[in-house]
Amino acid sequence: MSLTPYKHYVDLNCDLGESFGAYTLGADEEVLKLVSSANIACGYHAGDPTVMRRTVRLCLEHGVKLGAHPGLPDLQGFGRREMRISPSEAYELTLYQLGALEGFARAEGVRLHHVKPHGALYNMGARDEQLAEAIAEAVYRFDPSLLLYGLSGSRLLAAAERWGLTAVSEVFADRSYRSDGSLTPRSETGAVHHDESIAVAQVLQMVTAGAVTAADGTLVPIKARTVCIHGDSPQAAVFAARLRSALEANSVGIAPPIRQPTGKDFL
Amino acid sequence: MSLTPYKHYVDLNCDLGESFGAYTLGADEEVLKLVSSANIACGYHAGDPTVMRRTVRLCLEHGVKLGAHPGLPDLQGFGRREMRISPSEAYELTLYQLGALEGFARAEGVRLHHVKPHGALYNMGARDEQLAEAIAEAVYRFDPSLLLYGLSGSRLLAAAERWGLTAVSEVFADRSYRSDGSLTPRSETGAVHHDESIAVAQVLQMVTAGAVTAADGTLVPIKARTVCIHGDSPQAAVFAARLRSALEANSVGIAPPIRQPTGKDFL
Amino acid sequence: MSLTPYKHYVDLNCDLGESFGAYTLGADEEVLKLVSSANIACGYHAGDPTVMRRTVRLCLEHGVKLGAHPGLPDLQGFGRREMRISPSEAYELTLYQLGALEGFARAEGVRLHHVKPHGALYNMGARDEQLAEAIAEAVYRFDPSLLLYGLSGSRLLAAAERWGLTAVSEVFADRSYRSDGSLTPRSETGAVHHDESIAVAQVLQMVTAGAVTAADGTLVPIKARTVCIHGDSPQAAVFAARLRSALEANSVGIAPPIRQPTGKDFL
Amino acid sequence: MSLTPYKHYVDLNCDLGESFGAYTLGADEEVLKLVSSANIACGYHAGDPTVMRRTVRLCLEHGVKLGAHPGLPDLQGFGRREMRISPSEAYELTLYQLGALEGFARAEGVRLHHVKPHGALYNMGARDEQLAEAIAEAVYRFDPSLLLYGLSGSRLLAAAERWGLTAVSEVFADRSYRSDGSLTPRSETGAVHHDESIAVAQVLQMVTAGAVTAADGTLVPIKARTVCIHGDSPQAAVFAARLRSALEANSVGIAPPIRQPTGKDFL
Repeated sequence: MSLTPYKHYVDLNCDLGESFGAYTLGADEEVLKLVSSANIACGYHAGDPTVMRRTVRLCLEHGVKLGAHPGLPDLQGFGRREMRISPSEAYELTLYQLGALEGFARAEGVRLHHVKPHGALYNMGARDEQLAEAIAEAVYRFDPSLLLYGLSGSRLLAAAERWGLTAVSEVFADRSYRSDGSLTPRSETGAVHHDESIAVAQVLQMVTAGAVTAADGTLVPIKARTVCIHGDSPQAAVFAARLRSALEANSVGIAPPIRQPTGKDFL
Repeated sequence: MSLTPYKHYVDLNCDLGESFGAYTLGADEEVLKLVSSANIACGYHAGDPTVMRRTVRLCLEHGVKLGAHPGLPDLQGFGRREMRISPSEAYELTLYQLGALEGFARAEGVRLHHVKPHGALYNMGARDEQLAEAIAEAVYRFDPSLLLYGLSGSRLLAAAERWGLTAVSEVFADRSYRSDGSLTPRSETGAVHHDESIAVAQVLQMVTAGAVTAADGTLVPIKARTVCIHGDSPQAAVFAARLRSALEANSVGIAPPIRQPTGKDFL
Repeated sequence: MSLTPYKHYVDLNCDLGESFGAYTLGADEEVLKLVSSANIACGYHAGDPTVMRRTVRLCLEHGVKLGAHPGLPDLQGFGRREMRISPSEAYELTLYQLGALEGFARAEGVRLHHVKPHGALYNMGARDEQLAEAIAEAVYRFDPSLLLYGLSGSRLLAAAERWGLTAVSEVFADRSYRSDGSLTPRSETGAVHHDESIAVAQVLQMVTAGAVTAADGTLVPIKARTVCIHGDSPQAAVFAARLRSALEANSVGIAPPIRQPTGKDFL
Repeated sequence: MSLTPYKHYVDLNCDLGESFGAYTLGADEEVLKLVSSANIACGYHAGDPTVMRRTVRLCLEHGVKLGAHPGLPDLQGFGRREMRISPSEAYELTLYQLGALEGFARAEGVRLHHVKPHGALYNMGARDEQLAEAIAEAVYRFDPSLLLYGLSGSRLLAAAERWGLTAVSEVFADRSYRSDGSLTPRSETGAVHHDESIAVAQVLQMVTAGAVTAADGTLVPIKARTVCIHGDSPQAAVFAARLRSALEANSVGIAPPIRQPTGKDFL
C-alpha cells in the first residue's frame, strides 16, 4: 500500500485468558489495548471454558487476532514443566486444544488466526524435531490457514514451513541472543535485559535491520515478525506501551501477521 | 424410497471412547459392528486426546456416525454425579467438548453428526429447562446442522426444537416406562426389564406402533428415533445383536437419523 | 483461670492456603495476624502440595492453630458447586484430605487441631444427616482428638457430638439469622449485613449473650465458639482488625477452641 | 529363628490399587495371595479415595504389608512420563501422597510399612541425586520407621541410607542386568527375559548367591531384598505363583523386609 507511513510492520502478541475458576491471572483488559494478536489458553495449563468464552469476546471487542495457546496437561505447573510426551501425544493434545478453543470462536462468529504453543511445549517444539513435526501436523490438519508462531530459528518454524503453514518468527525484547541466533540461557549472566531502553532498542534493530547484536558483539541476522509481550504485571503494560510508541515513532506499524499464499513468510 | 424393504427405521446408538490413559473401558470394536451412531467421550467424564483420535478413526472404519458425548468435569465420578452448575457453565462446557472432538473429526476429514449429553448432564438437561436451553444453544451456535439426542419427552428435546435443531428422541430397551412417558425410577420395582425378550418386544412396539405399554398397563405414545445400546459388557453386545436381528426381521431398518430441514423431526 | 481479664472467649478462624500453582489467592500473611485458627485447603478445591507446605509453616510462625479444610474434588468450581456424592465418598474424600495435610504438619513437627469442611461440602454436611455422619466418622477414625467446626445448629455438629468429637459452633458476622437459628438465605433481602457496625455488634451479642436478634426481631439462642473471618480482600482484613479490637474492648479474649474431654463442648 | 527351614528370605512386592473411578486395573485379589508387600497408588498417577480405602482393607485381609506408591501428578500418563519437577516439588508431592494413604491406614487401625515411588518418579529418583534426596527426606520427615524400596544400586537407596531409613534393594525377575549392576535399557536387545525359566533362575541366583550374571556374562554382586511382581495380567499371577514355588523349594522364605535399627539393611 503506497500510502502507508510505515516502512516495516511487526506484530505484538501476548498470552491471554490464563485465569482459572476462582483464580485470576493477568491484566487481560489492559494488555489487549496494546497488542495486535493474543494467544488464548485452552484449559490444559491454564484457562477454563468460562474464561475462554470471555477471552474470545474480549479479543473481538478490541479487534485483536485470536490464537490458540495449547500447553501441556499440567495446571499445577502452569505448563512450564517439561514432560516426556511422545510425538503422537503432542499431536493429539494440540488438536484437542485447538478444537476446544475453536468452539468458542465459532460460537462468536469469528475464526482462529494462529497457534502458539505454550511454555514447555513451546520450548520442546523449538528444539525437538519430532515434536515440532507433530505440532505442525496437528495445526495443518486442523486448519492449514492458521499461522504458527514459534521461536525465531526454531525447529517448530522449520516444521511449519514443511507443512506449508505460514511460520511466524517470534523474538523477545528482554532476552539477549547468542551468536547462533538462540537465546542466552537464563542460567547465564546477561540473559535478561533489565534496562528497558536496551530492550526497546533491540526490538527496533531486529525489526528494521533484520538483525540483532548478540551478547558477544556479533551481528546476527534474525527474523522478527512478532514480539512477545508479557501481560502479567502493571510494569509489563507500561513497557508494552513504551515499546509501541518507540516502534511507531520509527515508522514501524503494529499489525498482526497475515497468511502467505506460499506459506513461507508473511511480508 | 419406494424400493426399501423397511417400513420403519431406527437408530442404534452407543457410548464409545470411554477409555482413559492406561485404563480401558468398553468393547468398542465389538459394539461398533452393531450400531449406526456413536457418542464419543470428550475428555471430561472419560476419554482423552489419544482415545478420541483412535475412536474417531474406528467409527470411520465402521461407517458409524460420529457424535459428541459431552459430560460433567468429573472423571472420578465418570460424569454420573450431578453437579450444581449454572446454565452458563453448561453452555461453556458443552461448547468446549464439542470443539475438542471436532478437532479430531476434522483432522480425519469427517464431520460430527450429533450430540448426546452424558450421564448426569443428560439427566439434568432432561428435567431442567435452563440447562436444556443452554446445552441446545451451545450445540446450535457450534453447528446448527448437528442433531441433538435426548430422552424422549425431555426438556432437552423441547429446547432443541426451539433452537431449530433436529431433536432425536431416545428410548431404552431395558427400562420400563410410566404412564406419563417417563422412565420408572431405578429405585422402584420393575424399573429394569431383566428379561431380554420383553426388552426386544418393547423396542419393536415403540418403533412400529409409536407407543409403549407402561408399567401400569396404559398405552403411552412415544417417539423412538434412537435406541441406546450399552457397550460395556459381552452380554450387552449379544443383546444388541439379538435386538438388531429382531428389528430387521420385523421390517425395521437400522439407520442413523438425518437432519430435517424444519429442525422438528427426522422422519 | 481466675486471673484472666476475659469473661468470654471466641475463636477467629479463616480459610487459608487457597492458592494453586501459578495462581495466588488470599492475603494469607495479613489475615494470619488476626486469627487464632486457620483452615488449610487440601488440594481438592484449592491448594497444592507446595502451597500446603508453605501454609503450614506460615501458621506455625504466627502461632495459629492448623485445621484441615477438605472440599469437593472441583478445582474449577472452587468446591462451591454441590455434587451428589454418596456418604461413602464423603467419608473417603475427607479422610484422603485430612491425611494429605497431616503429612505436612507432621513433617514440621506439629499436629492438626481441627477440621472444617469447605464450601459446598460444608453446606451439604450442615443439612444432610448421612453426609454429616460420614464426615464426622472420617474425622473420628483419623484422629478423635480433632475438633470439628461446623455451622451453628447444623447436622454436622450433631454428628460430631454423636462421635464424641468436640463440636465447634461457627457463626457469621456479616450474615443475618432467622428465628430458627439458621442463616437468612442469600437470595432474600437482608441476608448480608453491609454495615460493619451491625456485624461487629452481632458478634458481640452472640459471644457475650449467647443469642442473636433474628431478622424478624426474635431473640434466638446461639452458640458462638468461632467466627468465620474472610481473608480474600484488603477490606476483609480491616474488618477483622476492627472486630478483634471490639471483642477485646468488651472483655472477649481471642483464643482457639480446645478439646473437651466429654467431647460435647469446649468451654 | 532357629527352627526356620529357610536359609534366605526375600520379599515379593506388587503395585496395587491402581483402579480409578469407573476404571478397573489389575487383578488385585489374585496377586495379593502371592506377595508379601504391596505398593498402593495414592491418587496422583492412579487410585482414588474409594479405591485406596478398599485396597487398604484388602491388604489387611491378606496379611500383606502396606506401602505407599507415590507418583507424578499425571493420571493420563499413568505416572510414566517423566516431568521436570524440582527437588522441592518431589518432596512435597511425596509427602502429600504418603499422608493421604496414611489416612486410610490409620482409619483401619494399621500402619504403613514402606514407600516405593512409582514409574517415572522411581526412575528419576534412581538416577538424580537431588530428587533422591528429596524423596528420602520426605519419607524420613513423615515417618523415619518407614522402609524405602528402590532400584538396586540406585541413588534413591543411597539417599535412604544417608537419612537413616532402611533401604530395600529391589530387583527384577524379567529384566537382564549390565556389568555395572544397572538394568539393560528396554531399547536394547535382550533387555527382557521372555523365558520364564530364565527369570526364575535369575531371582534364585540373586537371592541365594547375592549376584547376577550380566548380559555380557560377568558375575555382578547385587542385593535382592524384594522382587517386583507385576499384577496386571493373568500370566503375571501364574508367573508369580511359579516363582514363589521355586523360591520355597530352594529354601528361600517369602517375607516382608523389616526395619533395621541401623537403617542400613534388613537382614
